[in-house]
Amino acid sequence: MNFIIRVAEERDMSQVLQRIQDLAVYEKEPDAVKIDERTLKQYGTGENPLFTCFVAEDDGDILGIALVYFRFSTWVGKSLHLEDLIVAQEHRGRGVGQALYNQVMRYGLEQNVSRVEWVVLDWNTDAIKFYQRNGATILTDWHLAQINEASLKEYVAQLDSN
Amino acid sequence: MNFIIRVAEERDMSQVLQRIQDLAVYEKEPDAVKIDERTLKQYGTGENPLFTCFVAEDDGDILGIALVYFRFSTWVGKSLHLEDLIVAQEHRGRGVGQALYNQVMRYGLEQNVSRVEWVVLDWNTDAIKFYQRNGATILTDWHLAQINEASLKEYVAQLDSN
Repeated sequence: MNFIIRVAEERDMSQVLQRIQDLAVYEKEPDAVKIDERTLKQYGTGENPLFTCFVAEDDGDILGIALVYFRFSTWVGKSLHLEDLIVAQEHRGRGVGQALYNQVMRYGLEQNVSRVEWVVLDWNTDAIKFYQRNGATILTDWHLAQINEASLKEYVAQLDSN
Repeated sequence: MNFIIRVAEERDMSQVLQRIQDLAVYEKEPDAVKIDERTLKQYGTGENPLFTCFVAEDDGDILGIALVYFRFSTWVGKSLHLEDLIVAQEHRGRGVGQALYNQVMRYGLEQNVSRVEWVVLDWNTDAIKFYQRNGATILTDWHLAQINEASLKEYVAQLDSN
């Protein structure tokens, strides 16, 4: 491999943000990324970070990222969530995604988690096949439920007005 | 309301575990709960807990629970995950679920999250309708991907043997 895998530092966050935007475009949501470099520095570095970001670097270029954090399952306990696994389009086929995925699994085992979990879009068959080849099970009977920031504010305001 | 909503303490975890087991039975996975009371105390109390558990209590009885923790979305930033919202069968219809849900939304707003997220089984239409009536959007185009503990160990062992 002509790249290294390491934990992201503050100076990487500009390129990490670019990879996140690459993925949003690929997922057909080009305007979905509301965070900025500052958000990544705030929550991804320092004393009690909300996430750990692994990067694949080749001579200063961030080829790909894998961003993870811990969760708590009431069935199995401490688990690791893989929020994003992203490889820049022009660096596909170099084993970057596989190396980042393997790093996440090694990290999960080191940290004694009982599960690694993530989500995948149902039409992303290449990703689904990759995950199935690499030990994962795909669950199709769960839906995601979300309240976004605007709906959250509206909902609580309406509670307070009653 | 003849119950109060408060944060769970160590002494509540035995009943919290019972509610978790209630939900596993309801979700047709009666043997899924591998954690015990000690796990809940370890990760739900102390300095840097992995989760916060709200309970609805009536004179020592834990009628229901809502267990939450923070996540990080690369689209919207800090978010709150609702892992479980559970009401004991014999205490349905008293507004316990609604009160716990409202508490979660207030907490999310207080903590400045940009999203509250959870998952729901596709056949649980009562829950889906409740969530939709209460500000949530249901996303049906994502699948969950998981590697359980045994598969994780096997996967990493196979990496190390190559």
